[in-house]
Amino acid sequence: MLIKLKINNIDCRKYPGSEKVYVEGELFPEIKVGMRQVNQMPTVKVDAEGNKTVRENPSVTIYDTSGPFTDPAIEIDINAGIPRIRERWNARRDDLEELPEITSEYGRQRLADSSLDSIRFTRRYKPLRAKEGAKITQLDQARAGKITPEMEYVAIRENLRCQELGIDSHITPEFVRQEVAAGRAVIPANPNHPEAEPMIIGREFLVKLNTNIGNSALSSGIEEEINKAVWSCYWGGDTLMDLSTGDNIHETREWIIRNCPVPMGTVPVYQALEKVNGKVEDLTWEIYRDTLIEQAEQGVDYFTIHAGALRAHADLISERLTGIVSRGGSIMTRWAVIHNQENFLYTHFEEICEILARYDVAVSLGDGLRPGSIHDANDRSQFMELDVLGELTEIAWKHGVQVLIEGPGHVPMHKIQENMDRQIEKCHGAPFYTLGPLTTDIAPGYDHITSAIGAANIARMGTAMICYVTPKEHLALPNLDDVRAGVITYKIAAHAADLAKGHPGAQVRDDALSRARFEFRWKDQFNLSLDPELAKRYYVESHKDDDRFCTMCGPNFCAMRISAATAESCK
Amino acid sequence: MLIKLKINNIDCRKYPGSEKVYVEGELFPEIKVGMRQVNQMPTVKVDAEGNKTVRENPSVTIYDTSGPFTDPAIEIDINAGIPRIRERWNARRDDLEELPEITSEYGRQRLADSSLDSIRFTRRYKPLRAKEGAKITQLDQARAGKITPEMEYVAIRENLRCQELGIDSHITPEFVRQEVAAGRAVIPANPNHPEAEPMIIGREFLVKLNTNIGNSALSSGIEEEINKAVWSCYWGGDTLMDLSTGDNIHETREWIIRNCPVPMGTVPVYQALEKVNGKVEDLTWEIYRDTLIEQAEQGVDYFTIHAGALRAHADLISERLTGIVSRGGSIMTRWAVIHNQENFLYTHFEEICEILARYDVAVSLGDGLRPGSIHDANDRSQFMELDVLGELTEIAWKHGVQVLIEGPGHVPMHKIQENMDRQIEKCHGAPFYTLGPLTTDIAPGYDHITSAIGAANIARMGTAMICYVTPKEHLALPNLDDVRAGVITYKIAAHAADLAKGHPGAQVRDDALSRARFEFRWKDQFNLSLDPELAKRYYVESHKDDDRFCTMCGPNFCAMRISAATAESCK
Repeated sequence: MLIKLKINNIDCRKYPGSEKVYVEGELFPEIKVGMRQVNQMPTVKVDAEGNKTVRENPSVTIYDTSGPFTDPAIEIDINAGIPRIRERWNARRDDLEELPEITSEYGRQRLADSSLDSIRFTRRYKPLRAKEGAKITQLDQARAGKITPEMEYVAIRENLRCQELGIDSHITPEFVRQEVAAGRAVIPANPNHPEAEPMIIGREFLVKLNTNIGNSALSSGIEEEINKAVWSCYWGGDTLMDLSTGDNIHETREWIIRNCPVPMGTVPVYQALEKVNGKVEDLTWEIYRDTLIEQAEQGVDYFTIHAGALRAHADLISERLTGIVSRGGSIMTRWAVIHNQENFLYTHFEEICEILARYDVAVSLGDGLRPGSIHDANDRSQFMELDVLGELTEIAWKHGVQVLIEGPGHVPMHKIQENMDRQIEKCHGAPFYTLGPLTTDIAPGYDHITSAIGAANIARMGTAMICYVTPKEHLALPNLDDVRAGVITYKIAAHAADLAKGHPGAQVRDDALSRARFEFRWKDQFNLSLDPELAKRYYVESHKDDDRFCTMCGPNFCAMRISAATAESCK
Repeated sequence: MLIKLKINNIDCRKYPGSEKVYVEGELFPEIKVGMRQVNQMPTVKVDAEGNKTVRENPSVTIYDTSGPFTDPAIEIDINAGIPRIRERWNARRDDLEELPEITSEYGRQRLADSSLDSIRFTRRYKPLRAKEGAKITQLDQARAGKITPEMEYVAIRENLRCQELGIDSHITPEFVRQEVAAGRAVIPANPNHPEAEPMIIGREFLVKLNTNIGNSALSSGIEEEINKAVWSCYWGGDTLMDLSTGDNIHETREWIIRNCPVPMGTVPVYQALEKVNGKVEDLTWEIYRDTLIEQAEQGVDYFTIHAGALRAHADLISERLTGIVSRGGSIMTRWAVIHNQENFLYTHFEEICEILARYDVAVSLGDGLRPGSIHDANDRSQFMELDVLGELTEIAWKHGVQVLIEGPGHVPMHKIQENMDRQIEKCHGAPFYTLGPLTTDIAPGYDHITSAIGAANIARMGTAMICYVTPKEHLALPNLDDVRAGVITYKIAAHAADLAKGHPGAQVRDDALSRARFEFRWKDQFNLSLDPELAKRYYVESHKDDDRFCTMCGPNFCAMRISAATAESCK
């Protein structure tokens, strides 16, 4: 398979004006945390007498989700997959066993089907799982007082080298361990996805953003999905959910995981439903269970599981303006009503947790009853389900499974705080992971924006991860441009919240960019921005000769230039 | 001059699926408030037995800023200007005098210059102003207990016909009068701009949005600026500021005002500076004063005046990362430092108010020291100036001049509330009118979004009007696409705040759109959205045969369809 790493005219193998740097671990010296370092131009001033002064400007460290793709020293071959950085860490563990072969029935069928050879990923790895009785999850280890390499990795990563700038930080490996042990933070790290760079989701850390990719019955092939994954990581996606519902889900996922430097999530019921040809009534616990194992052995790091949408909730649909808008929620309540039985994800939840615990797959408890409109926000159905998610959280924790709680949806601004407060209370502090929320229904085509307003607000209140929404939400599947717009928009929301939360060092980038702006160092301004290519393009398109002002104000009206002159006079 | 009212493939003479309706006044029966009515399709259901039921869906009333442009019954001729709806109201007043000719020196010079004939607006009107000693402003009239036609007009307009839907509303003409009398709301309504449809800016009313247009020395002609004005009103801009700094500002402005159905604002110092060839040191009070009269007689409805940026503030610039980023603020502090005198807008403020009172031009007290970066937010300079704006508010009110207070700028989310609280306290409840604020500095190219997050938040807290920011902010002048993106983004922020504030009837549109979405009435969904053309285009581009689902989810995965079936089963 040939994948162009130059996508939409962007070379995804480098960031402009930047270099890849690595910070080594202290507890685990083999840890090398990749970061992006933006190097700035010096500031040159010439005074009235013609004397020139040169001030060097410090480089700026940026949290980097692009993995090996932006390291020129690493050769990228999509057919081989990216480096498996955590393989050595896994090998050193005595609580994992390597299975001779994959154990899911469906995985074996696919492997035996030679007609799939042409689309199959080229290499094969043996799955790892917990030895019988071993407690292997990050949560288990944290509870046992053990700092894992993953914990030190994320501690270094969150700090953005701010200690070197003299900025205090409370984030240490031990602090990470405590947050994970308390269930307030999650490190999604399935040993079967050693390509993923560890990251942490919790309210004491940088706000993370998830992107969704995936084909549907109507569109999209494997190359396109890999492109989207690389693209998402390049722009700053922290995790990636593969929501494929079309053909060859199993094989597509393998390609993506083997090339994915960030944790990957899925909604297993989507694939389970494909296996029964889309007939909700034909879904069974056995098929679902096999799907969990299939995906866990491929390396999926977290599963969205709609175990909180109960049979009883179906009776409340008619109170709503827009019914159930969660695909998983609608499927499971439909199944429950058809069979007049309780949702099998709820009745089998202990068994689910046993499987997840063996592969350290985190559970993201789906909000099957999230409101799909302003009208339905914070209604009875939504909050009844949240109570159930609270019960399920305790069950998962009992099994050592790491837990995220998914949240709405569509919520007007004045109802956002209640969502956060209730989530913390009912779900015992487990990290909140919200879709938006959209703060109005009236802007299809711009729902990245309606939702970024909600996302920035709820993240500031403590939501740990926000799921991006693209401009095409409600209308169509996103293309590459939409993914880019969605990711950048959500980076804005996340960063705005990080600033408001006072995350150590978060403001360094703002200050550097603003200083560059004030000093007319345009290149530095572009390089420090979330989307250097776009910023530069907008500028260049309308730019004339003199770079001491832009077309916005013309030569006589540049406030920054006038005020710099005034400051000089006032010296 | 020929202006195409089909701009970028959008026919600016109609909204899809909509008709123009008028609501008549009760106190003033000649008042006809134009509104947009979106007519919906019926909902048709066929049950399992083949029985068909048809439910009519009510039309939805939308606040309409497009004026006569979207009324097919009105012939539009840019060369003649749009209908002067308030001319009759003015004619009935006994407190106005019609001047035999314009009184500004500059205006007369331009009129006498036959080389300008080719670019001059075709018709000429005699200026109106207060008779000697008459108190004519909306504020004066409100204080005197008088309900003006403008007040009844905005009361009707704000209510969106929600009484017809049985929705209670506190907004009556008398309530409007009280808010204006208290200074908490402003109706910008220069009698010399009778083309403008009255609107109100105040925290008890719908959040308004301002757009900026205007040429600079480097770009843009008259046709382009008129196009931008029509375009801005079409998409929902409530007021329009002409920030031109290039050639023929006077003539360009005349064309725009004569065709502008919304109040227009300017920053008179921009033109004053042009008159002295951009040399700040050559600015004088006399030139500025003449500019105020020139513009007031053309019909400008509000002036941004940077009277709060004082000589002493210049000494504080060096504390800042990004100095002074307000053009007006940088000009006036520079002037003060060069001449070692106090800002002449401050020393002549009483005289300024006397002029403004005679034409009922509102003053928008400029925030010359607004922060231009996260670093400088809420700093000493900013809040010192706010204190001065509070003093000036009282002086303006003493003269009967309506007051707006301009606000930042760049402010991280956790510092927004302090801006609102202090503004209310220091400026005695005068309406706040903010630029964004931008909640991070790191996203040039996306500053419509960084700022919409701040704008939605501050509007929810009580800011009455938000000034749009386009994607090109900090980089270049906006083109038509950027204006559209900026306006829609700010409509989102304003509407999100209206929902959060519980404005009567605000949610009707959300509910109607969501119901249309749930029932797969795609056309209604598009027609009810902020940007019908874009929403439809995104949909059509990826849409296949069946309109009962979209490409997002494919045929088996549409949550809304599945949940509708479940609700049916649960009946």
